[in-house]
Amino acid sequence: MNRNIRLTIRYDGSRYGGWEHQPDRPMTIQGKLEQVLARMLMLPEGEVPLVIGAGRTDAGVHALAMTANLHAETEMTEEEILAYLNHYLPDDIGVDDVQFASPRFHARYNATGKTYCYRIWCGDRKPVFERKYLTVTEGRPDTGRMRQAAAYLIGTHDFRSFCANPKMKKSTVRTVDEITIEEEEEIIRFTFHGGGFLQNMVRILVGTLLEVGYGRMEPERVREILEALDRREAGPTAPPQGLMLIGVDYD
Amino acid sequence: MNRNIRLTIRYDGSRYGGWEHQPDRPMTIQGKLEQVLARMLMLPEGEVPLVIGAGRTDAGVHALAMTANLHAETEMTEEEILAYLNHYLPDDIGVDDVQFASPRFHARYNATGKTYCYRIWCGDRKPVFERKYLTVTEGRPDTGRMRQAAAYLIGTHDFRSFCANPKMKKSTVRTVDEITIEEEEEIIRFTFHGGGFLQNMVRILVGTLLEVGYGRMEPERVREILEALDRREAGPTAPPQGLMLIGVDYD
Repeated sequence: MNRNIRLTIRYDGSRYGGWEHQPDRPMTIQGKLEQVLARMLMLPEGEVPLVIGAGRTDAGVHALAMTANLHAETEMTEEEILAYLNHYLPDDIGVDDVQFASPRFHARYNATGKTYCYRIWCGDRKPVFERKYLTVTEGRPDTGRMRQAAAYLIGTHDFRSFCANPKMKKSTVRTVDEITIEEEEEIIRFTFHGGGFLQNMVRILVGTLLEVGYGRMEPERVREILEALDRREAGPTAPPQGLMLIGVDYD
Repeated sequence: MNRNIRLTIRYDGSRYGGWEHQPDRPMTIQGKLEQVLARMLMLPEGEVPLVIGAGRTDAGVHALAMTANLHAETEMTEEEILAYLNHYLPDDIGVDDVQFASPRFHARYNATGKTYCYRIWCGDRKPVFERKYLTVTEGRPDTGRMRQAAAYLIGTHDFRSFCANPKMKKSTVRTVDEITIEEEEEIIRFTFHGGGFLQNMVRILVGTLLEVGYGRMEPERVREILEALDRREAGPTAPPQGLMLIGVDYD
């Protein structure tokens, strides 16, 4: 039967060149999935199914629940597909759920929101066991100042200053409806929820908020950065390993 | 000044050939520490200080708090040594504490007890982010049966049946005073406390308890295994990645 297979995928992005195929980076999450699916679907040599992800994660970024879908001809059940994929995918990619979706479901076009989480480590000791899933910083940034700065980012704005691609032709207007900044012992966790995010946007937001947290920038400066519509005004791009896609919303 | 430097070390053992120097395994935790310490102490080329560990952990086994010591001539403070080691050691080895101990302190001879923890994963999904620090099993073993079996192990016994080295000439009598088996959602955690443990002993104990948990062995069988004084009577050696040295006791 022709199925629209919806997948919920968890991955440790450490050793991958991101979600999406890259001509110069052989190993991507999408590529790995397509490789295993091609075998599962017994496609002719060289043919791979197209796996549509809800979004692209950068090299080194992780996902707790990425949503993806693909159309395929198969007689397998959802449970059989789940078991097959988990068996043949490497240890750092896990499929948590397989569902047959309606033929029109599209993981990217139907996504209405996304949640990302960014974790930084401010402890004295080295985060030996957590090291691949957070970013180590020097000293503890002031979360009060960062929350003040984050308030300017909430709402619908042109986030061009927070987009890695300066030549972006499509609209850079996005809606961010929630930013929370929580301290849990040695970890500070930033959570972002919004309709969608531009290339590197969460990482540039975190890099900018950290500038404020370390006192190198005033909270009010964030409003001016938004208005400047110029990437050079914002802070640095925070490293990828602290970032995790937590989930994707659908209506 | 001549110092007896006491270190508390945390490590992810995944890519190491265990704690102790092995002629055929180039990378060990002890070796890495000695390499960095030799540079810190500016010893002549080819000379390394002897780092004494509380015990040996096998290849792939982790430590939350290994204790070690070394005698060295240095003018550095405890804080300077801590900072130096954490800077030059790789990401998967962290030093949490440095203290100048009395000249007679010996990390191995003075150790009066050790705590080990072994974690198994019984969840349906793949433990993508935790995969290096636990062992995946098929299905959930019966913890009630395992606790019954564990009760036979408590006390001072000849644990020869649970020792990897059949030619062990020294005494194989050891005291285990506590074994706890806890369930935390998808994880079952075994904690062992005792005066000392033989080679692979915790892993063979876990391998045997799992046989009981899966119903392939009766709880009472554990008493007979102890009495047999024969490694072949016990269960298999559980894989290393689920094991972690939690701490070492000193009077």
